[in-house]
Amino acid sequence: MSFKETFDKLSSIVDEALERYLPPADAYPALIHQAMRYSVTGGKRLRPVLVMKAAETVGSKAEDVLPAACALEMIHAYSLIHDDLPAMDNDDYRRGKPANHKVYGDAVAILAGDALLTLAFSTLAGIRGSNPDAVVKIIGEIALAAGTFGMIGGQVVDTFSAGEDINENTLEYIHSRKTGALYRAAVRTGAILAGAGDEKINKLTSYADNFGLAFQIIDDILDIEGDAAKIGKPLGSDVKNKKATYPSLFGLEEARRKARQAADRALSALSCFGNEAEFLRMLVQYIIDRDH
Amino acid sequence: MSFKETFDKLSSIVDEALERYLPPADAYPALIHQAMRYSVTGGKRLRPVLVMKAAETVGSKAEDVLPAACALEMIHAYSLIHDDLPAMDNDDYRRGKPANHKVYGDAVAILAGDALLTLAFSTLAGIRGSNPDAVVKIIGEIALAAGTFGMIGGQVVDTFSAGEDINENTLEYIHSRKTGALYRAAVRTGAILAGAGDEKINKLTSYADNFGLAFQIIDDILDIEGDAAKIGKPLGSDVKNKKATYPSLFGLEEARRKARQAADRALSALSCFGNEAEFLRMLVQYIIDRDH
Repeated sequence: MSFKETFDKLSSIVDEALERYLPPADAYPALIHQAMRYSVTGGKRLRPVLVMKAAETVGSKAEDVLPAACALEMIHAYSLIHDDLPAMDNDDYRRGKPANHKVYGDAVAILAGDALLTLAFSTLAGIRGSNPDAVVKIIGEIALAAGTFGMIGGQVVDTFSAGEDINENTLEYIHSRKTGALYRAAVRTGAILAGAGDEKINKLTSYADNFGLAFQIIDDILDIEGDAAKIGKPLGSDVKNKKATYPSLFGLEEARRKARQAADRALSALSCFGNEAEFLRMLVQYIIDRDH
Repeated sequence: MSFKETFDKLSSIVDEALERYLPPADAYPALIHQAMRYSVTGGKRLRPVLVMKAAETVGSKAEDVLPAACALEMIHAYSLIHDDLPAMDNDDYRRGKPANHKVYGDAVAILAGDALLTLAFSTLAGIRGSNPDAVVKIIGEIALAAGTFGMIGGQVVDTFSAGEDINENTLEYIHSRKTGALYRAAVRTGAILAGAGDEKINKLTSYADNFGLAFQIIDDILDIEGDAAKIGKPLGSDVKNKKATYPSLFGLEEARRKARQAADRALSALSCFGNEAEFLRMLVQYIIDRDH
């Protein structure tokens, strides 16, 4: 199977599993379950794929970490719903369709985000067949990554530094927390549930950190150079919201160089692995080359 | 020690522990940590007290379940912050002071709620000295209680049935989920972490369900008859928001009788316990007699 076929197969395994983990669309009270499902539909499933492939890289089966993979995607979906709210980034479009609050209203959007975050932890607590100490450990790591020293912290600094002159340190803080923390947690979750030793976990963590940085820089570049139809939302939002980005701070050329350097570091971190890490290597190339 | 002294002592143990579990007010990014702390201050600590006293009733020490007790309080605080938002119940006051969003703005209030919910699961995952299977089990139960088949479900139905004619079944649905689910989870968490057997857990669950119902009916009555200064927010909000309540559905006299009946059922559920359940018995009387 080609890289793209493997990726698509994993994505559809995640889609099917999310279908099972999410309450049915007609379960009472139906409105909230429909709103949750609306925003879980259509993602690239990058975080779940990282969970599954990290587990495979250290010798486990992708299917064994599927609940954890889905939990990470629920947390990602919750963060997008809340970030798009009028009180936050006030974005009307996401993934080529109206944002959750444009369809369901602010009240339901807030509650749907809350519910996805909560369901993520239900799903994690429902993991069977793994060592319960490992389950408790990854719940702790994921909660920390999603909290104020991780994703929420990044969002706070991002929101309140809009329009301000920020330096590279602050930009690095925002990205490593807002998006990086969840990539890191995804990879570590897969490796820890698979019972990997510390050395392999550390290498995969370094991979995730550099992968996340490369991904974010490319995201910033696509917000300037990308094709709105492919990305599924209007572009130029960083400029509109006066947000500092890698291109705004360093210029497009230097931003591209930094993305390539981060990608190289991600690949180096995998040097202790053989063929079993081939997918993770190709994933780096994929996010560097992506157009959406 | 009198009942009131015991209650106050437990509350201050919870206050001190929350002080430790919450990030320092000056930890970066400080704004979010200040907002979280603002809304955790000043509660009655009823849910944590239930966790601790349920554990004591089945033979454990209150201090041993303190992290779980604090986690329940964080979830309660998050739910109040989000419920008070303009997009939701639009309440300006809570616990005698301006609501979180009136002080910090809607964006930070949304994120502070998200962060408290997330921190609750960090705190639960940090429990040491208990069987890890029990820790995973209570994380699952708490997440279920806080989710769309529990607290969030109750809030959704409550919000979207305002102004409508609702019957006793819907009213019972709203209250058993919106507030009841977390009381139930609190008591079960304490008992499960303490290693109680199924029979005792079931008795305590029945206690919690009836306790929660009695509590809610009294809450509805206080919204009509109470003293705003003691309760810390303007009264009559149920009437203003056209919300169905026990007094509006049955009249004050019948509502009072229903509260007393629920309290009696809560007491009966404890009949298999001896002196070790005396605090839980007195707690029922306390919530029936309370004026705030």
